[in-house]
Amino acid sequence: MISEDKIIQALKTASPGGFIGDDAAVLPHLSTGNKYVITKDLLLQNVHFRISYFTPQDLAHKALHVNLSDIVAMGAEPSYILCGISIPSKLQDYAVSFLTSLTLACQNAGVILIGGDTTASQSHLLISITAIGQAQECNIKYRSTAKSDDIICIVGNLGFAHFGFLALEQSRTADTKYVNAFLRPEAKIKEGIWLGKKESVHSMMDISDGLYIDLKRLVSSSNKCAVIDIDLLQTYLAPEISLQTALEGGEDYGLLVTIRKDAFETLSNDFSKIFGYNLKIIGHIINGKGISFKQDRQNVDLAVNPFTHFGEKL
Amino acid sequence: MISEDKIIQALKTASPGGFIGDDAAVLPHLSTGNKYVITKDLLLQNVHFRISYFTPQDLAHKALHVNLSDIVAMGAEPSYILCGISIPSKLQDYAVSFLTSLTLACQNAGVILIGGDTTASQSHLLISITAIGQAQECNIKYRSTAKSDDIICIVGNLGFAHFGFLALEQSRTADTKYVNAFLRPEAKIKEGIWLGKKESVHSMMDISDGLYIDLKRLVSSSNKCAVIDIDLLQTYLAPEISLQTALEGGEDYGLLVTIRKDAFETLSNDFSKIFGYNLKIIGHIINGKGISFKQDRQNVDLAVNPFTHFGEKL
Repeated sequence: MISEDKIIQALKTASPGGFIGDDAAVLPHLSTGNKYVITKDLLLQNVHFRISYFTPQDLAHKALHVNLSDIVAMGAEPSYILCGISIPSKLQDYAVSFLTSLTLACQNAGVILIGGDTTASQSHLLISITAIGQAQECNIKYRSTAKSDDIICIVGNLGFAHFGFLALEQSRTADTKYVNAFLRPEAKIKEGIWLGKKESVHSMMDISDGLYIDLKRLVSSSNKCAVIDIDLLQTYLAPEISLQTALEGGEDYGLLVTIRKDAFETLSNDFSKIFGYNLKIIGHIINGKGISFKQDRQNVDLAVNPFTHFGEKL
Repeated sequence: MISEDKIIQALKTASPGGFIGDDAAVLPHLSTGNKYVITKDLLLQNVHFRISYFTPQDLAHKALHVNLSDIVAMGAEPSYILCGISIPSKLQDYAVSFLTSLTLACQNAGVILIGGDTTASQSHLLISITAIGQAQECNIKYRSTAKSDDIICIVGNLGFAHFGFLALEQSRTADTKYVNAFLRPEAKIKEGIWLGKKESVHSMMDISDGLYIDLKRLVSSSNKCAVIDIDLLQTYLAPEISLQTALEGGEDYGLLVTIRKDAFETLSNDFSKIFGYNLKIIGHIINGKGISFKQDRQNVDLAVNPFTHFGEKL
């Protein structure tokens, strides 16, 4: 049986830059003009992951990157995390392996583990990560600042994680790229920080619950309407990914960005040169509310049925 | 059924000072010389609390104060929290009530709810709070800075929460002060902030896992030895509280403080005048390791058997 003190000792050794050991961690002073941004995400066994197909390394990577994704979606640079973990007695070895992998994943991402909490759990393993980043105040991006005529584009793939998730759940084989999109999503760290520095990026968020839900949140927060061009959207989809999966599938952890129209071409070209792949235009922002779909230059109705964690239709 | 978006909307309304709604919350700039401190604590149903005897109001109070206790034990002033919650379907009403109460408890404590995460849970309710405070850098207190000859004293009662916990678990009646010590512990907010500003306070931490374990952590971190005066300690104990319970019982959320000997009397008198109760001297720091006990001016052996969350002897 492993004690909390032993876990803390192991983390202190594995995370030499950290400041674990007091009641709270002290954050260093910031450079002038910088601000801290902070987020937290929970991952529960059998709600967000299964031990049967997540290795401790996969889970550590995912737990870290879903949080880093929130930080970089604000245009900020990830700096620190705290990790809370509730461990059922039969998963102690798994948990120790998870924590070791987490410190490695942190090193790879250039972030430092600075604290946390470990407790017992009666049934399921639970991971709670708090991530802290920093950015120049003027570079921080919000959801509420999309403007009319903005180009809406996405960074990353759509539906890959959901397709991979279904394959894992149904014990089907699927291309590694789909399975890994679900098991080990890569937060768009460099892209988010780069886009944060662009004044023509008016709003940004990550795509964690699916394009439709997340875009709806963005336009609702901005008091605008999004027009999605179905023809364009379909040109980006992998053969296995349906339009429905692209709109409804969650956990891809790409970025959703709205960009000033007249600056788009230059920014998009620069993006392609630097990152080696393209921003994907999916529509534009107009005055109004909600999301409307366009196909063959005509408005179309699409039944989108995203479900939240609580099983409620959005 | 309640959706995450509805919960967020309710929290936004109830927490007008907050900045909920983006991927991450942006922390305001600090006053010159101030630093942020950050902590997180998990509370699990049937590990840390039972729905049968915790009202949602009790649980909100406790979840907040166990985190604030960590902040003030650093000598810092609590500023913000983030709340992660995993909700089993049968406890949705309880959870909504908890979140409403949490915003009220935050208002009472002068802290602002700035973000969080809500997910479903298959079995148990889980609460994960991240608390953020701030302090002048020179006022931040650590565990590792106790010095030889320091007076060791405590702020608050010992064993009350454990006594109350046993009464609740065994369905016995017990004085409200014991039951409330477990259900609604009060973080020593004003005391911690005040002690933080005293240069003669060499080290500080909160007593969350029991005096013996926590003092052992403090001296281990400071590379010192603590001598506990059993005669003195016993003078503070309520009639129902045994010496063993005082040393081993957790969750009292008092403060453990070491103070420079020549400054103690003045500081202690000031403390009594301001807060209306006394600091309790329980021993002193010497060079060496671990904890030794003294009774009738003689060294005595005491079998202390604190257990960690994982059931392992410390």
